[in-house]
Amino acid sequence: MRIGAIEAGGTKFVCGIGNEHGEIEERISLPTELPESTLREVLNYFRDKQVEAIGIGTFGPIDIDSSSPTYGFVTTTPKPGWSGFDFLGTMKRELPVPYGWDTDVNAAAFGEAKWGAAKGLNSALYYTVGTGIGVGVYSEGKLVHGLLHPEGGHVLTRRHPEDTYAGFCPYHGDCLEGMAAGPALGQRWGVKGDELTKDHPAWPMQAFYLGQAISSAILLLSPKKVILGGGVMHQEQLFPMIRAEVQKNLNGYASHKSLLEEIDSYIVPPGLGDNAGLCGSIALGIDALEQQK
Amino acid sequence: MRIGAIEAGGTKFVCGIGNEHGEIEERISLPTELPESTLREVLNYFRDKQVEAIGIGTFGPIDIDSSSPTYGFVTTTPKPGWSGFDFLGTMKRELPVPYGWDTDVNAAAFGEAKWGAAKGLNSALYYTVGTGIGVGVYSEGKLVHGLLHPEGGHVLTRRHPEDTYAGFCPYHGDCLEGMAAGPALGQRWGVKGDELTKDHPAWPMQAFYLGQAISSAILLLSPKKVILGGGVMHQEQLFPMIRAEVQKNLNGYASHKSLLEEIDSYIVPPGLGDNAGLCGSIALGIDALEQQK
Repeated sequence: MRIGAIEAGGTKFVCGIGNEHGEIEERISLPTELPESTLREVLNYFRDKQVEAIGIGTFGPIDIDSSSPTYGFVTTTPKPGWSGFDFLGTMKRELPVPYGWDTDVNAAAFGEAKWGAAKGLNSALYYTVGTGIGVGVYSEGKLVHGLLHPEGGHVLTRRHPEDTYAGFCPYHGDCLEGMAAGPALGQRWGVKGDELTKDHPAWPMQAFYLGQAISSAILLLSPKKVILGGGVMHQEQLFPMIRAEVQKNLNGYASHKSLLEEIDSYIVPPGLGDNAGLCGSIALGIDALEQQK
Repeated sequence: MRIGAIEAGGTKFVCGIGNEHGEIEERISLPTELPESTLREVLNYFRDKQVEAIGIGTFGPIDIDSSSPTYGFVTTTPKPGWSGFDFLGTMKRELPVPYGWDTDVNAAAFGEAKWGAAKGLNSALYYTVGTGIGVGVYSEGKLVHGLLHPEGGHVLTRRHPEDTYAGFCPYHGDCLEGMAAGPALGQRWGVKGDELTKDHPAWPMQAFYLGQAISSAILLLSPKKVILGGGVMHQEQLFPMIRAEVQKNLNGYASHKSLLEEIDSYIVPPGLGDNAGLCGSIALGIDALEQQK
């Protein structure tokens, strides 16, 4: 198989070619500019690549309801030019192959379930913690779309008793994203996250917020794996702290060995590392091709 | 079709016979006693009923992982005699027909999706707010099981600024169930919920807690309908208050007309009323019969 993949982010687009084993054969990275010029570059890249299908995992919000007249559009993003843009339709017109289309985080969850940390499992949650927080939901062998698509980065959490930071989310102030995405670290402590030492009090506080959201998601959805990716999660000291917060919050209620003795292999980094998004887009492309057949 | 249904609760078992339209043709109610004697009564009821299949929606926690050696067991309930009891296996041995087996709230969500408030939709959340709080999750056309099964009644919420009540959950103290199930109303205000007037401050506080949990569940899962049942939700004044809390919490972020203009038909009572659980068990039975074929 020869599958095109697009990991469309707010600052860069990564385009690549992969195969049925999730192996990435080549890739390029492009800056995200106005949609027309960005997609012109994307299309130029794919034009002679002879891909059988393309998977797109993109920033959003996007319309992923295939019965909607605006299916394939970017919806209400503040990113200049992209709000209301027919991303998928533009691609289809210029390069007519089968397309997979989903959020960046759903794509990553799908890639992890196919080839990564959740390989062989029929459910997984994928969190990305970076400039924002997004959550991809794979449940009972399906990516969750629902009414719009999951936006689990914006759930409300309890405030840490020693935290006076207001939160930066323009919609909710101190929701999870407002308190625990990268910009919150910088604004709360006055220096960027990657300049904080590993024993800085920033990290237990970070784990407090993420651990709360993850505990509640485990209770609501009972996923078989929780995968934490994104720039902030390169701070590996967060993993044991988050696992401890989750166990403290659950307090033995959801009684399963994955949550009790084996939590080190339950809340984990992406098995595909920083390729989770691009591999996930390959997986979406393969899925689109197979549905076509 | 002639389908048996069991709605197994902690205080009573409702058993009935229904058809493929979700119509209940007859029913009985039995007190929940020790498992052997309760199931003897249940089996006596069904013995001559010539049902083609039986659906069981039950209190839990239960094992619903069909690959598990304890599939069909009640797991860790404090209810005397039931912890570790092979509920499904006992039924199968004595009355060998195809069985559907799920939690009471998943059954109710399934019944509502088949014949009730979420009819024709491929996703819905079903909350029951009574002596405890349970959440059934139906997503992308499937009931969510995952690692164990959803236990969304125990998510953490922020404390209401005027609330000094500690919460009664033995695991988490002031989780959603600890703060907003029936017993919390009684303990916080000194009288039972149904003795409080409709303009009592108990109700806005109740809506504050439920609205928070529901907002976060909407963000994480994007369900197409949210259905609120159980004894406490017979207090109909709660519905507009909860809808207002959800809109306040989301603050326009998940931009969909169901959440903005049409929330009165998005967060709703069960279409099947107090029959949601029993009808859901009929639906589980039908599903088991169809999978058999």
